[in-house]
Amino acid sequence: MGGAYGLRRSETGRCLPQLAGAAAMLLIRTAARSCWALQGIPRVAAGACTPWTPTHTHGTWSGSSHSGRSSWRRRATAVGALLGLGTALAYGGHCQQTAKAESSPQDTVPGPFPLYTREEVGRHRSPEQRVWVTHGREVFDITDFLDLHPGGRSKILLAAGGALEPFWALYAVHNQAHVRDLLREYKVGELHPEELAAPAAADDPYAGDPPRHPALHVNSLKPFNAEPPGELLGEHFLTPPELFFKRNHLPVPHVDPDAYCLKVEGPGGRTLSLSLQDLQHRFPKHEVTATLQCAGNRRSEMSRVRPVKGLDWGIGAISTARWGGVWLRDVLADAGFAEEPESQRHVCFEGLDQDLTGTAYGASIPFYQAMSARADVLLAYEMNGAVLPRDHGFPLRVVVPGTVGARNVKWLGRIWVSTEESPSHWQRNDYKGFSPGVDWDTVDYTTAPAIQELPVTSAITDPPPGATVASSEVTVKGYAWSGGGRGVVRVDVSLDGGHTWQVAEMQGEQQPPGQAWAWKLWQLTAPVPPGTTELDIVCKAVDASYNVQPDTVGPIWNLRGVLSHAWHHVRVTVAEE
Amino acid sequence: MGGAYGLRRSETGRCLPQLAGAAAMLLIRTAARSCWALQGIPRVAAGACTPWTPTHTHGTWSGSSHSGRSSWRRRATAVGALLGLGTALAYGGHCQQTAKAESSPQDTVPGPFPLYTREEVGRHRSPEQRVWVTHGREVFDITDFLDLHPGGRSKILLAAGGALEPFWALYAVHNQAHVRDLLREYKVGELHPEELAAPAAADDPYAGDPPRHPALHVNSLKPFNAEPPGELLGEHFLTPPELFFKRNHLPVPHVDPDAYCLKVEGPGGRTLSLSLQDLQHRFPKHEVTATLQCAGNRRSEMSRVRPVKGLDWGIGAISTARWGGVWLRDVLADAGFAEEPESQRHVCFEGLDQDLTGTAYGASIPFYQAMSARADVLLAYEMNGAVLPRDHGFPLRVVVPGTVGARNVKWLGRIWVSTEESPSHWQRNDYKGFSPGVDWDTVDYTTAPAIQELPVTSAITDPPPGATVASSEVTVKGYAWSGGGRGVVRVDVSLDGGHTWQVAEMQGEQQPPGQAWAWKLWQLTAPVPPGTTELDIVCKAVDASYNVQPDTVGPIWNLRGVLSHAWHHVRVTVAEE
Repeated sequence: MGGAYGLRRSETGRCLPQLAGAAAMLLIRTAARSCWALQGIPRVAAGACTPWTPTHTHGTWSGSSHSGRSSWRRRATAVGALLGLGTALAYGGHCQQTAKAESSPQDTVPGPFPLYTREEVGRHRSPEQRVWVTHGREVFDITDFLDLHPGGRSKILLAAGGALEPFWALYAVHNQAHVRDLLREYKVGELHPEELAAPAAADDPYAGDPPRHPALHVNSLKPFNAEPPGELLGEHFLTPPELFFKRNHLPVPHVDPDAYCLKVEGPGGRTLSLSLQDLQHRFPKHEVTATLQCAGNRRSEMSRVRPVKGLDWGIGAISTARWGGVWLRDVLADAGFAEEPESQRHVCFEGLDQDLTGTAYGASIPFYQAMSARADVLLAYEMNGAVLPRDHGFPLRVVVPGTVGARNVKWLGRIWVSTEESPSHWQRNDYKGFSPGVDWDTVDYTTAPAIQELPVTSAITDPPPGATVASSEVTVKGYAWSGGGRGVVRVDVSLDGGHTWQVAEMQGEQQPPGQAWAWKLWQLTAPVPPGTTELDIVCKAVDASYNVQPDTVGPIWNLRGVLSHAWHHVRVTVAEE
Repeated sequence: MGGAYGLRRSETGRCLPQLAGAAAMLLIRTAARSCWALQGIPRVAAGACTPWTPTHTHGTWSGSSHSGRSSWRRRATAVGALLGLGTALAYGGHCQQTAKAESSPQDTVPGPFPLYTREEVGRHRSPEQRVWVTHGREVFDITDFLDLHPGGRSKILLAAGGALEPFWALYAVHNQAHVRDLLREYKVGELHPEELAAPAAADDPYAGDPPRHPALHVNSLKPFNAEPPGELLGEHFLTPPELFFKRNHLPVPHVDPDAYCLKVEGPGGRTLSLSLQDLQHRFPKHEVTATLQCAGNRRSEMSRVRPVKGLDWGIGAISTARWGGVWLRDVLADAGFAEEPESQRHVCFEGLDQDLTGTAYGASIPFYQAMSARADVLLAYEMNGAVLPRDHGFPLRVVVPGTVGARNVKWLGRIWVSTEESPSHWQRNDYKGFSPGVDWDTVDYTTAPAIQELPVTSAITDPPPGATVASSEVTVKGYAWSGGGRGVVRVDVSLDGGHTWQVAEMQGEQQPPGQAWAWKLWQLTAPVPPGTTELDIVCKAVDASYNVQPDTVGPIWNLRGVLSHAWHHVRVTVAEE
């Protein structure tokens, strides 16, 4: 891989000898700007020399530490070393744009600055309309910086028309004096002093929902359902909670942690009441890295075959976190239950989120799974080492590794054991799979089992569909995961629509067989066949039981658009040589 | 279904009014022959009025008893009732052939009969060469009975050129005086008195192998590897041991049950020695209905894509039995082991079958699986309620439900626990899956996990490929199964190559979720679209984790031809109306 990147560097570097005089001065300026890169960046310019290292790291990623920041620092060192060997050359390819930036008016705007509303800023979201962003009260036109952004043009465009803060919160390396200095060169105005967040409507049940990250693609605002863009999703082995997909069925409840009480109905009518303190101090704490996936992930591919009923999720209704909390089996044992391998009973969960009639969200899992020492079912109060965010179930949620997101009940209020599955609509009359021949006139929800363990899936997170890739080689990245603790054992990638296949490199946490709850991130760097103008990139994964993804979406189409796990295709254009 | 059959009956019945005189007399004769049907038959003439009932029944098949015979009797009653309503009409369609039979010479052969060798009889295997069979010392030309056989022409042809006894042993209803009387009408000769089985060659390590059923399709004689024809396989929920696929890697060892001793290496160097008596009396007996499947089942479909290395199995390297024996976990506990859910150790098995160098067959499974109260791993000494046959591991074999056949070690001699998988060739350097891009120059067996749990599969057992089906409607039958106790929850069937799908009816034993070790048999009766001349029948199954089969074989092709579990296609011709 290093060799390939080296080649690219030397190619772009060729523009330096052709420059002279003022142009050489510009390069000094460019290098000064690129010192941002020296401090560490989320990602070096697309296709540049970042070693394959996840941004957020976990103990088991080889050679990395628990701290995202230290990984930044390490990467910065690598980049710095490269700069020492001629980073100015690497940026030489951008000298044309830099020259334009130098002569653009905003560098010379003295102030006082014109005032804008957030709405006015929001109209500037593409190079054609100029790209504006805000930071604090300041407004910047960063159009001419797009191609200079060391993290790549597509990443910085995620903030177009809005505030930088949520992105800088994710990629804290930006939040430094010299970056702010750099940004100031692009200042074009300030926000109107009256520009404050609009007060929430008192009669809106969703008015109390928490703020969300603007990078999320919103599929439904009320209830809130949103997913991160593939390019961001595929960069973090542990998804930052801000980017973790949100799948709410109802308004987010306000829960006072001091008043919180979990009710666990034990055998013989006894009810155990546990405060958050009880949960945190009376039971040992455990941590599990587990991927959660919505049953509707990748539904948009299914709805392109024939319309289906459901939110139009892309590939982002899946995310991974390190969950901390107590084993459900410890709590159930405390309530008086014992393991029964042959039991046909169910453990039912009810959330504190309710609709206007007072009906709460609910779901259930098999009792034997809840009690199994190998199933690792958690009542989680932490996510990636911090307090569980409100959107993810604060103060307590169920995490059922390997099982569809819908059973991972958030804002957990009540647990009971029953001979029947949860009576909830979402257990009995939703989240089930049907034959492609079944329509809304013939569907009978009693004939299909509730989705629990999910089938094997994978998707390409980078490049995005419609991208232009280099004619020399292409790097393809993605995720792969399977339910039931069946770890992914192989990912095959094709550049020609599935005619030929190459095996991708996988990275992830080492988890025991049958308990491989977390996804694998994968990548493949492969030469682009000479003369190719387009690539139909495809991925397919194989899990530990050697289950594979189906070739096409049509034959697994179902009226509810769930379980869309066929091969994932991304079509891209090859740049002319 | 009844209505459709009724239609067919009335169509064939139309020939009766056109007959007169001698022809009417023939019908009486035909009806007399068809009294065989009155006594109960393995299957009524293809597409006739048998209710959908498995031949071998188990307690949980609704309304059936444990006895196969009682199911015959019930079916016979149903057929009898139909006969009362005009079975002579049902057989009227055969009047042309019957007329020929009446005038054929063998009815009038008085004897003494000519003498034949078995080899001479073996040359008569098709209607063109005449179809001969033997029973005891007698030789019969049954060519003219083929279309009169109530079980269908294809079934009786399985015995062509050989002895009837192995089939009558399977379908005991034949073994009655009036059937023997009927057969006598077709007698054409007798076997030479010297016709005895050839003595085994003393230097052939396979000379001591047991006799096998002639219906099996032999893929390799030494070691013996054979499968039943699909049509027979799909008729029995519990596969009769004679038909159960045989997959031997080495000669079948001769084991003296009185001298047999299982060695179990316990912790701390202690070895437990258990006789067959010990196993049968010191541990509780348990029974499990489990399907076993060879990793190479359906390899022939894969080798049609590109050549692979391995036996050319059709769809029959899968069978189901009710296994009786003791839990492996009870034996391991007796040897001093305790459950350890987090253990990464393996339980290794070694067979008493050895190659000429003394190397025994071996395999291993994870320790946690061996000890799990839900995994039902059995040391079996019974198969379908009788002593384990020699070909299936007499006197003791491992049965690992949901796991590839290769780990179900037969003729079990030794068990030990290790931090490593079994060192056996078959664990380390065989029975693994690879990407379609991997060839014999690039394969690295250390990069892939040993196949353990198998993926979901299904196949069409009836009609066979190339059959001619009625233009009105078609009945499709098959099996479906998945590994890991993930029961099959749905089978979709297409008559048009996968464009449209209908849901099949499934029957099988009710087993708990996660412990659904047995296959499902399924069938679909559907109208044939008018004007269709050919059908591309396809089946695909969905398991409890909603895993599905891949659409096509090419993308799962692998150099060893294992895990061939794509949609199964059977192409048939539609009879002209």
